[in-house]
This record gives sequence, C-alpha cells and structure tokens, in this order.
Amino acid sequence: MYDGIVQELIDELGRLPGVGPKSAQRIAFHILQTPSFDVSRLSDLLRDVRERVRFCDVCGNVSEEERCSICRDPRRDPEVICVVEDAKDVSVIERTREFKGRYHVLGGAISPIAGVGPDDLRIPQLMQRLADGTVTEVILATNPNLEGEATAAYLSRLLTSMEITVSRLASGLPVGGDLEYADEVTLGRAFEGRRKL
Amino acid sequence: MYDGIVQELIDELGRLPGVGPKSAQRIAFHILQTPSFDVSRLSDLLRDVRERVRFCDVCGNVSEEERCSICRDPRRDPEVICVVEDAKDVSVIERTREFKGRYHVLGGAISPIAGVGPDDLRIPQLMQRLADGTVTEVILATNPNLEGEATAAYLSRLLTSMEITVSRLASGLPVGGDLEYADEVTLGRAFEGRRKL
Repeated sequence: MYDGIVQELIDELGRLPGVGPKSAQRIAFHILQTPSFDVSRLSDLLRDVRERVRFCDVCGNVSEEERCSICRDPRRDPEVICVVEDAKDVSVIERTREFKGRYHVLGGAISPIAGVGPDDLRIPQLMQRLADGTVTEVILATNPNLEGEATAAYLSRLLTSMEITVSRLASGLPVGGDLEYADEVTLGRAFEGRRKL
Repeated sequence: MYDGIVQELIDELGRLPGVGPKSAQRIAFHILQTPSFDVSRLSDLLRDVRERVRFCDVCGNVSEEERCSICRDPRRDPEVICVVEDAKDVSVIERTREFKGRYHVLGGAISPIAGVGPDDLRIPQLMQRLADGTVTEVILATNPNLEGEATAAYLSRLLTSMEITVSRLASGLPVGGDLEYADEVTLGRAFEGRRKL
C-alpha cells in the first residue's frame, strides 16, 4: 500500500510477536517522525543484541559472555538450581530477590501437541551439571500449566534416584488477589498446600 | 534486570507506540532467537526508512522522492483534492479504490487541548495549491471526531469565498471513531455519499 520501503518495514515489523498489521503501521509512521539519532540507536541495538548476546554455556540464560553474570557470581549458592522454561523467567524470579542459587533454562516445556519432547530441551545439560554431586536441591519452577506440570513431573521422576531434594514452586492464591475470582483448580491447590499457622 | 545491552533494547522497544514493557521483552527475546539475517534486515530497514523516506513536497504523503507516487501519476484527477489528517489515511483511502483525485495531508487536526492551531497544519500549502484555480472540488476527509470536525468546519469556512465545491465524507463512518480503523466498504460508502457543505 505504501511506496516500497515503508511497506517493507511494516511487513517486517508485523512479523514480530504481538505486533499486528495496524501496530506495525503505527510503529513505521512513528519511526518516520522520530529523530534520526534515536532510530539509529534502535537499529544498532537490534543488530548488536543479535550479534553480541548469546546464551550462557552453563545455564542457558542470556549473556554477553560464555557464562552469564549469575553463573559467574561467586556469591550465588552453587548447591541450589532453579529450573525454568525460559530465559525470560530468570529475570522474573530475580526480581523477587528471594532466590540466591543458580538457574537452569530448559528452553521450553514438554508438549506432545507442539512436538516438543524431553530431547528437545536442555535436560542432558542439567543432568551433566548434577553429576558431580555439588547440587543438593533442585527447584522446579516450570509454568503451572499443562506443559510445565508435565515437564516438572518428568524431571522429578528422572531425579528420584539421585541424592537431591526436588521441590516445586507452590501453587495457590495470588497475593493481593480475591478469593471470589480464583478458579477452582487454583483454589483446590491452595487448600492442598495450606500451611499451619 | 538483564545484562546491559538486552535491557537497553527492551527500553528502546518500549518507547515505540503500542509496545509496553512486556511486549518489548517478548520482542527482544524473539530477536535473540531470530536468524541474524532477518534481524539485519529489520535493522537496515529502520535506518533506511528514516534516512530515505520523506514527505511529498506537494501533498505531504510519504515518499521516497520530492513528489510522491500519487502526485507524479498523470492519471490522477488534478481537479479533486482529498484533505486528510495524516499520511496513514492516504493508504487507507487508496485501499477503497474509490478515489481518483489527489491528496493533501494536513499533518494533524485542530485541537485547542493539544495546542494545535490552524498554523500548525499544512493549511497554507493547501491554499497555495488551490490558488491557480485548477482544483474544483475539495473533499474533507478528516476524522469524524471532535478535532476532525472542527478542522473540516474551519477549512469549509476558509474555502467558501472560492469557486470550489467543498464536501465532507458522508456518515457511515462511526462517529467518535478513527479513519485509520474504518473498513474498506464503510469508507467506500462514505465517499459515495459525501455531502456538499
């Protein structure tokens, strides 16, 4: 619909996740009216991130070096590993400031429908990290949905033979939430996992 | 939350219209997992669009040359000008294939609240285009909302003294809506039923 290159940009932007054709058009016009300097910055950042940022060889988190900042940090407890599906989840958990151990990013969850089996995830790398006996606890922090639960169940079975405490993040009512709006499954879990006061 | 450059990209993406912090994070992670070649393409397109695309000297539409493809097209009726608020609106109207004349992009609408007065729009350029008497009809296709109506009323008054038929897009467009989001059929009807002012 537009002269060549503008339409090309709109098409390319429309391929980004969560950006539909209308948003893509809006962003393209925003770009046309943004100072050149800012557009260059974004353009450079896109290229640099793709070229310089990689995934940590040890845990699979995003990193600009072979090992990510968490794996390099000697203050992080090497005996506890928190297993997450995605590198995004690392930063979500970091924001809580509750966890002082290290991470292992699986790169997804087991999903027969999407054709993702255990072999498609970074599970062998996890087993290798556990082999030397340093790790004493593994926290399974995969998502509390069908795929995440299946992955947690699979890993839990895989780790039973080892001398490792395996735990799963608690399910229950979200803090600040309202009982009235909780779904039955969540509420059921909250009952199951009730703590004595 | 992330190692330097990834967070920078998230921040920069979050400044785009319609992209919140969560979407920005999602896009950044998508970039990390997209082939380098595609990311380079997007990066180059952003820069090229900003550097090469400009606004048509005559009508204000987006263009890679001094005059846009519509102003250069000898088949387009030079006697009819469709006045729109934004360059985006040109492509929306082009999609209906109803209109064979030329355009004039105002670059916004009169809005006392936003501090946009007639002098901030490309109204002098419009008057200049009308001065030689070639144009016999002006269609006011500003948005059917408060600012768009005010702008149409202002222009209509400005043009009464001239030998020009002034019309406004017909109702059919939902009042309070936005031209950008109108479907082609509705917009086509609006062209057919335009009212003389």
